[in-house]
Parts: sequence; C-alpha cells; structure tokens
Amino acid sequence: MTARSCLTVVLAAGEGTRMRASRPKVLHAVAGRTLVGHVLAAVQATGGRIAVVVGPGADAVTAEVKRAAPDAAVFVQAERRGTAHAVLAARAALEQGADDILVVFADTPLIRPETLAALRAPLAAGAAVSVLGFRPADPTGYGRLVTDGADLVAIREEKDASPDERAIRLCNAGLMGLSGAHALALLDRIDAANAKGEFYLTDAVALARKAGLRAAVTEAADDSEVLGVNTQGQLAEVGAVLQQRLRAALLDAGVTMAAPETVHLSADTAIARDVTIEPYVVFGPGVTVAEGAVIRSFSHLEGARVGPGAIVGPYARLRPGAVLENDVHVGNFVEIKAATVEAGAKANHLSYIGDARVGAKANIGAGTITCNYDGVLKHRTDIGAGAFIGSNSSLVAPVKIGDGAYVGSGSVITADVPADGLAVARGQQTVKPGWAARWRAVAAARKKP
Amino acid sequence: MTARSCLTVVLAAGEGTRMRASRPKVLHAVAGRTLVGHVLAAVQATGGRIAVVVGPGADAVTAEVKRAAPDAAVFVQAERRGTAHAVLAARAALEQGADDILVVFADTPLIRPETLAALRAPLAAGAAVSVLGFRPADPTGYGRLVTDGADLVAIREEKDASPDERAIRLCNAGLMGLSGAHALALLDRIDAANAKGEFYLTDAVALARKAGLRAAVTEAADDSEVLGVNTQGQLAEVGAVLQQRLRAALLDAGVTMAAPETVHLSADTAIARDVTIEPYVVFGPGVTVAEGAVIRSFSHLEGARVGPGAIVGPYARLRPGAVLENDVHVGNFVEIKAATVEAGAKANHLSYIGDARVGAKANIGAGTITCNYDGVLKHRTDIGAGAFIGSNSSLVAPVKIGDGAYVGSGSVITADVPADGLAVARGQQTVKPGWAARWRAVAAARKKP
Amino acid sequence: MTARSCLTVVLAAGEGTRMRASRPKVLHAVAGRTLVGHVLAAVQATGGRIAVVVGPGADAVTAEVKRAAPDAAVFVQAERRGTAHAVLAARAALEQGADDILVVFADTPLIRPETLAALRAPLAAGAAVSVLGFRPADPTGYGRLVTDGADLVAIREEKDASPDERAIRLCNAGLMGLSGAHALALLDRIDAANAKGEFYLTDAVALARKAGLRAAVTEAADDSEVLGVNTQGQLAEVGAVLQQRLRAALLDAGVTMAAPETVHLSADTAIARDVTIEPYVVFGPGVTVAEGAVIRSFSHLEGARVGPGAIVGPYARLRPGAVLENDVHVGNFVEIKAATVEAGAKANHLSYIGDARVGAKANIGAGTITCNYDGVLKHRTDIGAGAFIGSNSSLVAPVKIGDGAYVGSGSVITADVPADGLAVARGQQTVKPGWAARWRAVAAARKKP
Repeated sequence: MTARSCLTVVLAAGEGTRMRASRPKVLHAVAGRTLVGHVLAAVQATGGRIAVVVGPGADAVTAEVKRAAPDAAVFVQAERRGTAHAVLAARAALEQGADDILVVFADTPLIRPETLAALRAPLAAGAAVSVLGFRPADPTGYGRLVTDGADLVAIREEKDASPDERAIRLCNAGLMGLSGAHALALLDRIDAANAKGEFYLTDAVALARKAGLRAAVTEAADDSEVLGVNTQGQLAEVGAVLQQRLRAALLDAGVTMAAPETVHLSADTAIARDVTIEPYVVFGPGVTVAEGAVIRSFSHLEGARVGPGAIVGPYARLRPGAVLENDVHVGNFVEIKAATVEAGAKANHLSYIGDARVGAKANIGAGTITCNYDGVLKHRTDIGAGAFIGSNSSLVAPVKIGDGAYVGSGSVITADVPADGLAVARGQQTVKPGWAARWRAVAAARKKP
Repeated sequence: MTARSCLTVVLAAGEGTRMRASRPKVLHAVAGRTLVGHVLAAVQATGGRIAVVVGPGADAVTAEVKRAAPDAAVFVQAERRGTAHAVLAARAALEQGADDILVVFADTPLIRPETLAALRAPLAAGAAVSVLGFRPADPTGYGRLVTDGADLVAIREEKDASPDERAIRLCNAGLMGLSGAHALALLDRIDAANAKGEFYLTDAVALARKAGLRAAVTEAADDSEVLGVNTQGQLAEVGAVLQQRLRAALLDAGVTMAAPETVHLSADTAIARDVTIEPYVVFGPGVTVAEGAVIRSFSHLEGARVGPGAIVGPYARLRPGAVLENDVHVGNFVEIKAATVEAGAKANHLSYIGDARVGAKANIGAGTITCNYDGVLKHRTDIGAGAFIGSNSSLVAPVKIGDGAYVGSGSVITADVPADGLAVARGQQTVKPGWAARWRAVAAARKKP
Repeated sequence: MTARSCLTVVLAAGEGTRMRASRPKVLHAVAGRTLVGHVLAAVQATGGRIAVVVGPGADAVTAEVKRAAPDAAVFVQAERRGTAHAVLAARAALEQGADDILVVFADTPLIRPETLAALRAPLAAGAAVSVLGFRPADPTGYGRLVTDGADLVAIREEKDASPDERAIRLCNAGLMGLSGAHALALLDRIDAANAKGEFYLTDAVALARKAGLRAAVTEAADDSEVLGVNTQGQLAEVGAVLQQRLRAALLDAGVTMAAPETVHLSADTAIARDVTIEPYVVFGPGVTVAEGAVIRSFSHLEGARVGPGAIVGPYARLRPGAVLENDVHVGNFVEIKAATVEAGAKANHLSYIGDARVGAKANIGAGTITCNYDGVLKHRTDIGAGAFIGSNSSLVAPVKIGDGAYVGSGSVITADVPADGLAVARGQQTVKPGWAARWRAVAAARKKP
C-alpha cells in the first residue's frame, strides 16, 4: 500500500456555534494541541498530500494549519452547502490526482494513523468508496451502515431507516476513502435534491453502487476514535480519552505514576522509563524528561527539558527554555524560564531564575531573584560553577557571578563578582534596645481611637 | 400558581451525630455554601415565607440561617419527637396561613426550585398532601409509595411492607407539600402511637385519605436531588453531584475546561463565556470571571473579580478583595489580597500584593512584597500607572509610588516616590577577592571535626 | 488461635521485568510505603516470625526489609526455580518449626491482617494446606479451585481445566497456609516434572490429599486484597484501591473532605476527627494532624505534625521536622522544614522557615527567609515569642531574635536582636526626580536599533 499515493482532504470549515466560544472550534486544544493539529498529526503520520478546507475569513485556522502542516494546501469554502460541497472546495488538489483520497474532519481529533491506513485498504483492493464504521453504545441519531458481507450497500439516515435498519449497530463515522480514479466523477454527481438543499458526501455510496462500483466498510478499532467535538462537554470528553491514551502509553513504557489520572499530559510529552511522576503534575507542550528523574506533586512544565536524575518540585514551575541537566534539584515555589541549570545545581526554594545560566553544582539560596527585566529590555545572569548565592539575594542583570564565588545573603548584586570572590551588598544592622516595647504601646493606643 | 402564597418549613434540628464532627451537620459546606444555605437558596428561588426549625442551643445554625435568609423566622424544637413534631415547632408561622405549605430538610442540599414548584402543583389542583417520590437504584430501607393512578394511597415503611409492596421502586423522599387549608388540622391529628413514640409527618397521608382528602405524588426529575447527608461520605457524595451540576452548566455556557472534573467551583461562581480554565483550579465563594480570561492550573480564587482577558496563574492566589481589571497578568506564586490591579498591569512572580492599588500597565518585579502590616495596623500601598517596581523590592506601607516612577531592584522603599522619579534603597556592593576560596577551606575543615 | 505459633514466608525474589524499571518491583511505593513494606506491615499485625526470600544481589530489597521489619530473617534464592523452590530458600526458618506456616507475596500489598488470620484458621482445625481463594470478575488465566464442600480438591491451571472446571469462578490467589507439622515434608516432595521445569507451591494441595491430609480454601473478603503488581498500570490500580481504603477510613472517623478523591494519603497518615481537608492535598509519610485543623488546597505535607486548630495552606509545604503547634497559620507559598512554630504564630506568605524555632504568637512577614545554609553547614534561627519579623527580611543563621523584638521590613539580620529591641538593616533610600522619564526615552531608543 505504501506504493499508492494519497491525498487527504481535512474539512475544517465548521462554525462550531454550539461551543459558544469566540475561538473557532478546531482551534480549541486538548493535550496541548489544537483539534485540527491532532488531525493533521495523524494525517501526516499516514503520509501523502494534505488539503485543508476552511471557512471564509478563517485566518486563525489557516495560520494554525500552516504551523502544524506547512506543506498543506488550504482552500476556502465560500458558502456552507454540505460535506461534498466542502470537499469540492479542494477541487484543485483533487484534480492533481492521487490513488487514494481520504476525507477526514478537523473536529475528530482522536483518529489514529492506523485507522486511516485501514480505511485506504479497500481502495487498494478495488473499492471506489470506503466508509469508516463504528458501533456506538447508543446508535440513536447516527446513519446506519447497511452491509452485505464486506460490501457496503447503503448509508441509511435514521429518519429514513426501517425498523430492521434501525436495529443495525454499525454506524457511519463520517470519514471516507475514495478511489482517486472515481472521486471527482462521484463528487460531481452528488446533488442537493434533499430537504436541506445540501450536497452530502454520504451520497457517494449510492452513486458508486449505481455505477457498478464497490463500496466497502472499515470498522474503527476503538469507538472513541471517531468522537467529534461540537460542544465544550465533548471537548472535555475527547480530552479525557486522549489523556487516558497518553497515560497508558507512559505506564507501558515504564514510567511510574502513583495516580496517573492526576497527571495531565501534552500529546508531545516525552518521558523516559524509570521516571517517577507524583500526583498533580501538568505538562504543557514541548517537555522532555530523561531517565531517573522525579517530577514531584504540583509541578507545571512547559517547553522544558529535564535531565537524568533531576528532582523537580513539588511546586516547580518550568517555563519555555528551562533546561535542567543531570541531577539538578528545583522545587518548592521555584520558577525557571529560559535558563540552563547545569549538572548538580540546586534552586530549592522560592526563587525566580530567568534568562540565566546556573553553573554546575551552584547553590541558589531561598528567595533568590534574577532581576532580568529593566522595564524595557531583558538581560542575562551568568552564575558560575560551584557558586553560592546567599538567600534572598537579587542578581541585577546583566551580571556575571564567577565560578566558586560567594554572594552574601540578602545582597543586591549589581556588578560582576570575580571567581572565588565574596560579594556583599546589604545595609548595616542597627539596633535600638527597647524600641519595640515602646512602639507597641504607642501603636496599640493609636489603634483604639 | 404564582398567585398562591407559600410557607416553607425547613427542618434543621437534626443532630448529625453520624458525621462525628463538632460542627452541626447542616453547617458543613459543599461548593462553598452550607447545607442549610443550599436549601434556603432553593427555597428563596421558589418564593414565599420561610420558617426554619432548629434544635435547642443551635446558635450557629440560627446565625447561618439569618445570614442566608434574613427574612426567615427561626423556631426552636425543644425536644426531638419526630418530623411532624418538628414542623409544629413552627406553629406560629403555620397559623399565619398560606395556600401551600412545603416541608423540606436542611440536609438535602441538592433539591431544586423547579422540584419544589412541582411539589406544589397538586396542592393547587386540590390535593391536601403532596409527597415527593424518587426511584433509588436500591430501594432497601426506604418507605414505598403505594399509588393508584395519580393518587398516593399510602406510604408503607419497609418493615410493614408486603412482598408486592417491597417490589415498588417509587420511594418516599421525605419532602412534602400540604394544603394550607388542611395542614394544621392534619398535623395536629398525627399521634405518637408507634414503637419509637414519635410524631411522623408521613402519617399525614393516611389521615388525609381517612378524611376523604386527596394525596398526590410528584416524582423528582433526578434522584440525586433528594440525597440526604448523614455521614462525611454522603457529604462528599453530595458535593460531587453538585460539582458535576456546576461544571455542566459552565460547559453549556461556553466555558472551556480541558478537564472539568479537576475544577472545583462554588455555588455562586460566575464565569463568562470564552473563559478557559486549566486543570486544578479551586474557586471559593464570591468569584466572578469576565469574558476571555484564562485561569491557569493550580490557582485558588476566593472573593475575587477577574476582568476580561486577564491571565491568572499558574499558581495564582486571589484572596478576598482582589480585583483584576482588563488584561492583567498575575501568576507563578503570586498572592493578591484586597488590592485592585488596574488594566494591563503585571505581577508575574513570587509577589505579595495586599491592601494596594497597582496602576494600569505597572510592572511588579519578581519577589515584590507590599509590607502592609506593621504588627498592629494594616496600611495601603499605592502604585501609579506605568510604574516599574524592580525585583525583590519591599514597599513599606503606607507608601505611594508615583505614575511612571522607577524603583531599583532590591530596594526597601519607606518614603513616597514622585512620579517619573527613581528610587533606590539598597546596600553598597563590596567585593573581597579570593575570600570564598579561603572560607571554603576553613569551613570544610570545621565540618569534619 | 493466638496460642499457635506462626512463621510467614514472604516471597520477594520476583524480578518484575514487566515494570520496565531499574528499581526492584517490590520497592515501588504506593501510599508512601513500598509494596514489600505494606506486606510486612500486614504480616507484623498478624504476628509470628517472618522470613523474607529475596533474589541474588537484592541489597536494596534486603535493606528495605530490615528497615520495615528489623526482626525478619532474609534468605536468598540463588536461582529462580518456582514458588516452592523460593519457599525452601527459607529452609532454615522452616526447620525452626511453627504451628502455622504462611506463604505470601511481596507484590500483593493490599492483603489484610484479618485475611491472613482467616487463612490460618483451617490449619488450627486440622487442615495441612489452606489456600486463599477469590472471585475475579474475569477468571481467565487464573487457576481454578475445585472444591468439595469446605475441602479443596485441586488447583486446576486454566490450560488443564475441563469446560466445567473453567466455569468455576473461585480462583487461586496464590497465598497459602501450611500446617507446620507437614510443611517441610510436603515442600520437599514437590518436583519439577512440568513443562517449565519449576517447583510449584500449588502442587502441595495434590500431595497433601495423596497423603490423606486435608486441604481447605478460605475466601478473601474483598477481591482487591489479592491484586498483584506486575506492571506500572497494576501499581497505579493498587494505589487507587489503597487510597480509597484510606479515605473511607478517614470519612468514617469524622474527617471532612469535600472531594476525598483528590486527597492523597500515606498508609501512616494520622488525622483526627473534626479536621477539614480541602481539595488537592498530598500527604507523604509521617504526618499527623490534630483535631480542628484545616488543611487547605494545594498543600503538601511530609514528616510533619500539625497541631489543633492550625490552618495550613493553601500552598503550604511542610517538610520533615515541621511541627506546628495550636492555632498556627501557615500558607500561601510557605515552606517549613525542621522547624517548630509555636502556638498562635503566623507565617502566611512566601516564606522559607528552616532549622528554626518560631516563638508563640510571632508574626513572620511575607517573603521572610531564614538563611540557614552557609554553603557548608546548616545553622539555626531562633525567633522569640511575640516577635515581629518585617516582610522580605533575611535572618542569617545562626541568629537569635529575642521575645517581642521587631525587625524592620527588608532587613538582613546578621546579629542577634535583643528582646523588645528594634533591628533595621537596609539601605538608605535615595530619589532622583525625573530620572525614570529620561531613562525610558534612552532605553526605548536603545531597544530599536
């Protein structure tokens, strides 16, 4: 089958009014990726050319398509006149020809590449139309697939179905494969002679059979694959299925999660074996975690790389560009952004490390802040290997702390510190004996007018 | 039906010993509201007068009733002698008369106004007694409702039920409506001639029918509505149902939640459409969130107002009196209390902003603390529009930072800063070359005695 | 039965390759305790001697066994030749004799002491072999228990079972009791004449019956008790069951949890009645919470003691050695480690208190850091009763703040402060009018090259 060429038409023109959101439906995200992004990822894994049909004025959708699949051709469906009409918006792509044509929907993000491949198989075996079927727990509302052995006889909409046909459990999932040899001819023959005056892709089945061509049905391995998103509730449902898939894959790969249902993953989260993830961890997009690392509770990671044996959290906030090398410890209300923390370094309490390098085995005291922003520009902080930054210090960037240097607690460091040097920058302590007792008496009196 | 007057008697005298708690049962909270508070809210939505019957010495319950429903009359049931006896504790209210009398329980917090209205409908149609029925998955232990068409023939306690009657699935939920014309007469006729020597409200059905009056049954739309709370486990169960209701309503209204089951809401949480809520967010009472805002993971909000387009969290802690205007950004271990943060201002890292105003587009550096408490009194901090507060600064209130002013990182600001001025208040940096290397040698020697 | 002596052989030599982890399987933890630790706790509660059989080179397992059950004898099974072979690795312990011998598995951590006692009962009644049975939802793959009244006739492996035998729901859980009088003789008679060439403990049943001895079956009260852990997924499943058990016990004891499914407990978590735990709290090992305390959301506790009426969190991080006395308030991004916070003291915002004492009613301002580590050694901070530590202060240990002393906000305290004295240690504020406006113009110009 690899020898056959393929064009996948992704229909992304739906308005999604039932989401009641201003954001276009297919730009809603689950597991750190938009709905259309999930579909494009599955299609890309299947291979072949991609054409995406969007609604008029859908600039944000087009931008996301270009980001997720730069080679995809984007077509605009000017009027909404049904699924077949939408596919034909990509006529230019269809006319370029392909052995197999797949039609998929940008709002069914759980579809797997394996299922798309399976949907193509009957086309290779000579069918003109290949329809994806599934068996919902409750078939009410779905079109039923009337079959004769491996052949698909008809797609019967519920309102037109006989009692016998209504008893059929196998339903139309909407996804379709078309033989490239017949696709345009079939699509062009579909008419709008129905109650709604729309051009329905499902009519391709009857037209193919009328023309003496074969229609086939392929069953989805897993009903959840064809879940479509039309409401916020369905978005959450699809998200839950996806999280279960991602968690199961991690467990199978040797990741330890005491409470996997509390770990929220992104589609691209890459976690090695022998990693332990405690309850309540959120992974945004772009995170990799190497062997033996431990991600403790209440941590939130995005765009971050965690090295082998690192201990992250509890309450670690890794933002994009955070790179933790081997055996780094970061946690307890610590935020790292666009900073590399080198092997064995520690930042364990209430610190903000941004636009910085922390050298190997450096120790960042509690409450340390890299003052990276001057109100207009961001500047870098460079902390040398083995440096000791005393607690509650402020490192005013741009600034460089040399290897092995020592910064006294509570210092505001505005100038570079040489290697192995000591820097202290804090006020002199003055003491007034008895002051507090006198002050309390005065203040208490003031409190009660 | 709106023309008919109504008196609802809320029975809140139960001791709740099975909770094993020192707090009275009906003062336990779910979704940020006490059990009795939920019931009173449903009753208030139904309309009419309210009488609440509490146990002796239940001052805390009375206070909560007065807070939640200031117009409710509170009556004390001196002795615990059964449900009818409890209702008659409110005799003074009953004697004032009403077309409809409803009897509800302060420990069934999921009851809906619609169901209370439905329970009144048969009274308007001439019934003397109207009983709420439900169909539990397992009816064991419940009184069965013996019906004849729309008429309620009897409430049969399980121990008195015949095998046929035990097979009845429709059970007594406890809530009852009484025609105002007959209520007192029926209640006064109830006696304590039973094993426990108690006056049972359920006897009103038999007494009504004996007097030639009609009794009717109304079925609850949803069995969960009549869940009562007697144990900590049931409290949690009721809380879970309530969270599901609240989440479903938000999803329907166009709120995006990737994992709604991880979002904990209060009954009064008001969230606009087009808001996104990430996993693990807790809303205490009194929170409103405007359109387009994003509430990120691990945020905790109470008594706070979030403006349009604001980004809150991760790890934002909004306490009562926090007001975030349009497009404010707050997060990453930041606490806001009794402070208004004006449009476009940012406080993104490890800060405490209390008793303050932060002007529009001001930038609050990482680690900034408003030092609002002097040990006796709280004081205000006023930060002007466009001001820049350098990281790790302390603003010692009362203090005013002018519009466009600039505070150097690590400063302790004790005096007002003029608009567009610079204030710096930190120690001078001194450096001792080579000190750290020498110190480490000495310290290491000291470590190993 | 208490009069009968018992030896329990714990089989802990499994390799656990399906975990895909470098850590030995039985050292994986659920509810803050290793799998073998859970089993040993149940065995210890049952009483008697303990022998643990480990694999070669399993030093970490041996160490954990010695930690959890110091009196247990550890034996090494040099080769892996089946369960009976593993039991005989403890021959020296068996030869010391006991009335009852129990064989349990280190990877079935949910077994209860009551069930182990029940498994011994048939031995006291004269049986030579006692097998634990359970009724899985799907018996596929399990050995079926062929019974005749109370007698166990045979353990039939699925592949050898007749259709009738396959229909049996009662399955072999693996755990076995052996009469001490017959144990060694039976075990020595087990041979390896089977497909895998292994010595199977289950053969003891047939051998006992052949010798005219009785075999009996005991049913587990709860199927989850015999859940074994072979994969990361099963580890999570077992963890979930354990959490449910622990939560249910707390609810029964009068602990209030609005969302118990979000509270993660350790096996040794001790929480008094009248404690409220909000959603999203994680308890590591070694935590006790006294009556009336409130643990708020997003808190993480390990090795900590929380006193009566204390309020902890939200976002409180209590690490080992944290002791909070009566009515202490700690929360909002505050970490406490190896520190006693005395009655009524408060540390409510963004603070790190480590290696310290905080005296009664002391007030720790927002952003306070105890600078306890000098890069080589840790030092103590002692804060007196009623002291006031101004916000954003650094207390450089070793240091002592006297009773009633007052530390000005933003101070770096390096020397002791006398009781009732005031200490201030911060820079002088200087102001440059107009500087910010000029700087912004210059910086903005620099920004756009």
